[in-house]
Amino acid sequence: MKRWQGLVQEYKDYLPVNENTPNVTLNEGQTPLIHCDTLSEMLGINLYVKFEGANPTGSFKDRGMVMAVTKAKEDGKKVVICASTGNTSAAAAAYAARSGLKAIVVIPEGKIALGKLSQAVMYGAEIVSIDGNFDEALEIVKEVANEGGDIELVNSINPYRIEGQKTGAFEVVEQLGGHAPDVLAIPVGNAGNITAYWKGFKEFNDKHGTGLPKLFGFQAEGASPIVQNKVVKNPETVATAIRIGNPASWDKAVTALDESNGLIDSVTDEEILEAYQLLASKEGVFAEPASNASIAGLIKLHRAGKLPKDVTVTAVLTGNGLKDPDTAISLLDNPIKSLPNDKESIVKYIKGVMH
Amino acid sequence: MKRWQGLVQEYKDYLPVNENTPNVTLNEGQTPLIHCDTLSEMLGINLYVKFEGANPTGSFKDRGMVMAVTKAKEDGKKVVICASTGNTSAAAAAYAARSGLKAIVVIPEGKIALGKLSQAVMYGAEIVSIDGNFDEALEIVKEVANEGGDIELVNSINPYRIEGQKTGAFEVVEQLGGHAPDVLAIPVGNAGNITAYWKGFKEFNDKHGTGLPKLFGFQAEGASPIVQNKVVKNPETVATAIRIGNPASWDKAVTALDESNGLIDSVTDEEILEAYQLLASKEGVFAEPASNASIAGLIKLHRAGKLPKDVTVTAVLTGNGLKDPDTAISLLDNPIKSLPNDKESIVKYIKGVMH
Ligand SMILES: Cc1ncc(COP(=O)(O)O)c(C=O)c1O
Ligand SMILES: Cc1ncc(COP(=O)(O)O)c(C=O)c1O
Repeated sequence: MKRWQGLVQEYKDYLPVNENTPNVTLNEGQTPLIHCDTLSEMLGINLYVKFEGANPTGSFKDRGMVMAVTKAKEDGKKVVICASTGNTSAAAAAYAARSGLKAIVVIPEGKIALGKLSQAVMYGAEIVSIDGNFDEALEIVKEVANEGGDIELVNSINPYRIEGQKTGAFEVVEQLGGHAPDVLAIPVGNAGNITAYWKGFKEFNDKHGTGLPKLFGFQAEGASPIVQNKVVKNPETVATAIRIGNPASWDKAVTALDESNGLIDSVTDEEILEAYQLLASKEGVFAEPASNASIAGLIKLHRAGKLPKDVTVTAVLTGNGLKDPDTAISLLDNPIKSLPNDKESIVKYIKGVMH
Repeated sequence: MKRWQGLVQEYKDYLPVNENTPNVTLNEGQTPLIHCDTLSEMLGINLYVKFEGANPTGSFKDRGMVMAVTKAKEDGKKVVICASTGNTSAAAAAYAARSGLKAIVVIPEGKIALGKLSQAVMYGAEIVSIDGNFDEALEIVKEVANEGGDIELVNSINPYRIEGQKTGAFEVVEQLGGHAPDVLAIPVGNAGNITAYWKGFKEFNDKHGTGLPKLFGFQAEGASPIVQNKVVKNPETVATAIRIGNPASWDKAVTALDESNGLIDSVTDEEILEAYQLLASKEGVFAEPASNASIAGLIKLHRAGKLPKDVTVTAVLTGNGLKDPDTAISLLDNPIKSLPNDKESIVKYIKGVMH
């Protein structure tokens, strides 16, 4: 096992890297591709999950952020700023800390999962919480960044974000032994990631003839502007990471979906939470609610008889379940049994529940 | 990049694997070895951190647990049981879910970090919380397991745990280009991990001549039985994962420390929390409090003039910072600024704090 250098170094032939580019890395990427035996059988497919929660800050956002912060540093910027539903702010704060830049993050009040907030705090970001939603936060940071100077906007409208994120597709192809899956299932919020994956699959295919997947994108029903083909003013979903009413990369996502001969659909919060529990309790894989939109979507298609049979599917699990402990605990259907410190009665209780 | 098969497959020549051994894996292992520029300079050493938080359940426990659950399944067991300060229960629950076994975990009431509890819940373990500490919980599960039958004890007294965990040492050696670091710094609770690393370094050295590190073990001051050379009746520390008064692998740890010509020392909660914030805010690496005992220990030795100069040190960061969001947020010294949804005033505020 060679030491993995981080994705900018490892994929530098595919990325905007030159001799002046600084080496900023937390050794992100090279995340596990986990096979799901039980769900494969249940759905009649060959299912792998790309576990992006193994990245240094626990989400796929590290892929884009390492590239964006690297270039900000190369360009002599001193501050990075972003609006965020949580994961972007964690990644921005971590890479800013790593490279000696200041990070300012603007978040929608009360709608950030606890783990993500703890990260921004620990990495030392300046955190501004606004009484508004993500889309409004994005307007604000754009305005600040537009004034120019040594501040860089690192939301996914920053083109380096998409460049970094496309490496997820490279890895999936390599991990599958040199060919794209038949289907890539992926949650959609701002639609940066689906755009990036498509770019990655195309670039690898152009160079290596590794094939192209159909893209299956899934939005949360209460935040499904692309599915509905209209802006959602007050998006709502338990999957706070994809609580987006007006996706920044809307057009690019539609193009990707068309080009890949794919589809986009929505899943309810109930369907997301069902998938969330199923994946953890049957496969031992804990991913945050938004990530499970991809699993929920596959289950929905299967139930409707619309999921192709025996195809190889990779579902992107965008973030770690630990990002949002509260949602997990709120589902508690196996209550924790509290017992006094009396050995005999504890042993007796355990024997009772053992089988 | 080849797809990593998980550590049992990848290191099967070094592990108790035969033709009847089932393939249980979450593709654990192959965790990043991250270089720390800022801390290296500060401490006058060449510091790498082994980021075990990138494992599937967010801690090094996955290494031992994949091996223990694999063998439990091979032996036809139906239930795994453990006492846990949190990380062991998360790993046991995940691998049990993955392989269709039942998991029962016994935890000390109120002393488990939130993230770890959310994991045990989601992976579907039976959770028993007792009004006692870890050492008492361990007595209880030993008693249940001793009755025999199809139940397997998966605490670190289970020898397969140590076998799996020793692969951490293999990876460090490989990632450093085929030689052990001069020093391995590691937090010590039950002392299973320090025992396992030493076994791993020795086995690799016997086979490949890759050298041996000095082991530097660090306990929390309020839970430092090995340092004090006496059992601690009521261990207390903010680093709940190493809140252990009577380590299961005490003797083996002492032997490892002696053989490696190493040392064991204790660090206060203040020193742990200082290291915790420093690592996150200067290096962008967020590891749980217990993990930072290793960093705190290096800082303490440096301040006392006892840290060798210019040596290569690998500090094992045993668990992900996301495991314990509450401790992070409790340290909050950069309060979150809440602002009303008024664009102009937000932009003005941000410009004020920007530099
Ligand atoms: C966990 C998680 N999943 C999915 C998404 C959606 O990705 P995108 O906004 O690129 O569509 C996000 C974005 O914040 C996310 O954090
Ligand atoms: C995060 C973390 N660090 C360190 C340790 C200590 O490891 P050991 O008990 O093997 O000494 C543990 C054990 O629970 C842990 O969870």
